[in-house]
Amino acid sequence: MNDITVSSPATVSNVVCGFDCLGFALDQPFDKLNIRKADEKGISIVNNDAFGLPTDPQMNVAGVAVSEMLRVAGIDQGLEITSTKSIKPGSGIGSSAASSCGAVVGVNELLGLGFSKGELVEFAMHGEMLASGARHADNAAPCIYGGFVLVRSVDPLDIVELSCPALWATVIHPQIEIKTAEARAILPKQVPLSSAVRQWSNLGAFVAALSSGDLDLLNRSMEDVIVEPVRKSLIPHFDEVMKAGRSAGAIGGGISGSGPSMFLLAENENSARLIEQAIRSEYSATGIEFNTYVSGIKSGGVSIL
Amino acid sequence: MNDITVSSPATVSNVVCGFDCLGFALDQPFDKLNIRKADEKGISIVNNDAFGLPTDPQMNVAGVAVSEMLRVAGIDQGLEITSTKSIKPGSGIGSSAASSCGAVVGVNELLGLGFSKGELVEFAMHGEMLASGARHADNAAPCIYGGFVLVRSVDPLDIVELSCPALWATVIHPQIEIKTAEARAILPKQVPLSSAVRQWSNLGAFVAALSSGDLDLLNRSMEDVIVEPVRKSLIPHFDEVMKAGRSAGAIGGGISGSGPSMFLLAENENSARLIEQAIRSEYSATGIEFNTYVSGIKSGGVSIL
Repeated sequence: MNDITVSSPATVSNVVCGFDCLGFALDQPFDKLNIRKADEKGISIVNNDAFGLPTDPQMNVAGVAVSEMLRVAGIDQGLEITSTKSIKPGSGIGSSAASSCGAVVGVNELLGLGFSKGELVEFAMHGEMLASGARHADNAAPCIYGGFVLVRSVDPLDIVELSCPALWATVIHPQIEIKTAEARAILPKQVPLSSAVRQWSNLGAFVAALSSGDLDLLNRSMEDVIVEPVRKSLIPHFDEVMKAGRSAGAIGGGISGSGPSMFLLAENENSARLIEQAIRSEYSATGIEFNTYVSGIKSGGVSIL
Repeated sequence: MNDITVSSPATVSNVVCGFDCLGFALDQPFDKLNIRKADEKGISIVNNDAFGLPTDPQMNVAGVAVSEMLRVAGIDQGLEITSTKSIKPGSGIGSSAASSCGAVVGVNELLGLGFSKGELVEFAMHGEMLASGARHADNAAPCIYGGFVLVRSVDPLDIVELSCPALWATVIHPQIEIKTAEARAILPKQVPLSSAVRQWSNLGAFVAALSSGDLDLLNRSMEDVIVEPVRKSLIPHFDEVMKAGRSAGAIGGGISGSGPSMFLLAENENSARLIEQAIRSEYSATGIEFNTYVSGIKSGGVSIL
């Protein structure tokens, strides 16, 4: 095998009450990455899209993730990574994780390195560190594992795959820029114990509801009393989108990642499409450009094409 | 039917990472309550034990819980409640909840009132309010439902029964007094967001581990970075008990309620008995009197005898 092509999914992290630990993978949108063995040593990056991401492998999230992987494996095989991204950088649905995870899964398969999914997440986190300055796995873990994933701990990495019913998601991406640094800076350093208790009670209930398939409980537990009240100020018309989505039948929803994308969960595709109509109608009135996606929850993570 | 006798279980609340929301019921110890229809109106309380609890029904947790229940039902049937307690008041294993829950379940059955379990927990919470000054359900809910129970919300009351494997618990009750007010006063009003994230990541993982029966994950998630570090100072030799219990095979453990009791979870009875030996040996050296209990997790809550 001389080359391999993978499909790497968008992911929603910071799922409502699961700030900094809970994420899930989407069937749509996804990036494609082709990885080819090269005669020349080193990693070269080719961007087959219009996003203008860095081609210096040490400044590119896929590049640094694969570099770390080859270093640990003790291999100096030359590689050319051609990236065809559909997930817009800065959209809040795991664009950087899709690049770094797609690359490490592809290289692992192409070179037969045999790293585990957990190890691949560790490598991808080097890309996340480059992209955001923080060592976090809440996009990379669902991107590689698929489904709903809880990151119990980053050091040491402890990833929990959650059982869940077949759910759908509607995502809306307003074409505005939110600086990750700003989204982080406005978070409180300290939170009231009573709010923290409410948040973890909701998260416990959310995990239980996913496991039992109790959609009413899922609905009641999709409440974020800590992060959303602060960050929603960065996202125009957040409350209106949530209200319209819930009126159209959404189980619940919130900010995807640190925004600007928002997501709503639905019990089936039909419901997700009705929610899409409702929030498109709501957002069209704002004058802000936006994209929407309707997607099943992807099982299995990055896939080899 | 002129009278009824119920068995009402001890409960462990504030289960490690589940402060103020997570509890479970024990097979041992338990209180017995006999409730008899009386010709005279009003509630009379008879204490068939040496704990010296109030017999004025408005000062007695069972009395106030049943009073509220009769008021809502619009019934003025006279009742005599005879309580034979084994669960020592102030032990931290839900003594007041056992009294109020046993009474309301018994009266509900005796008079055929048809209240739901959730409504019975609401009535029992009037007893908890009298006992602790706080409207909380994390002992009353597992006492009435049995098993592991998560209280997602108190207002409105939202109780989640968690699926879990057959587990055992070892409890040690040092015979010291901890004032509930003091145990509450030393808690921080504000907590670092990073600690809160760690706590809810652990609770999410704990619920997932109960559901999947993954005891290794249960072990890793039994970590409390917020309440235990503060409250353990009130409990002599807490760290030594936890260490001895874990060395003897415990899955994990922590403070029961607001103490002074401590508990450790075990995967079977044999393991729970080995843990009991280990912590008895540890605590015997302290010179503090103590009791221990070894118990399965009770399913089904208060039972009619």
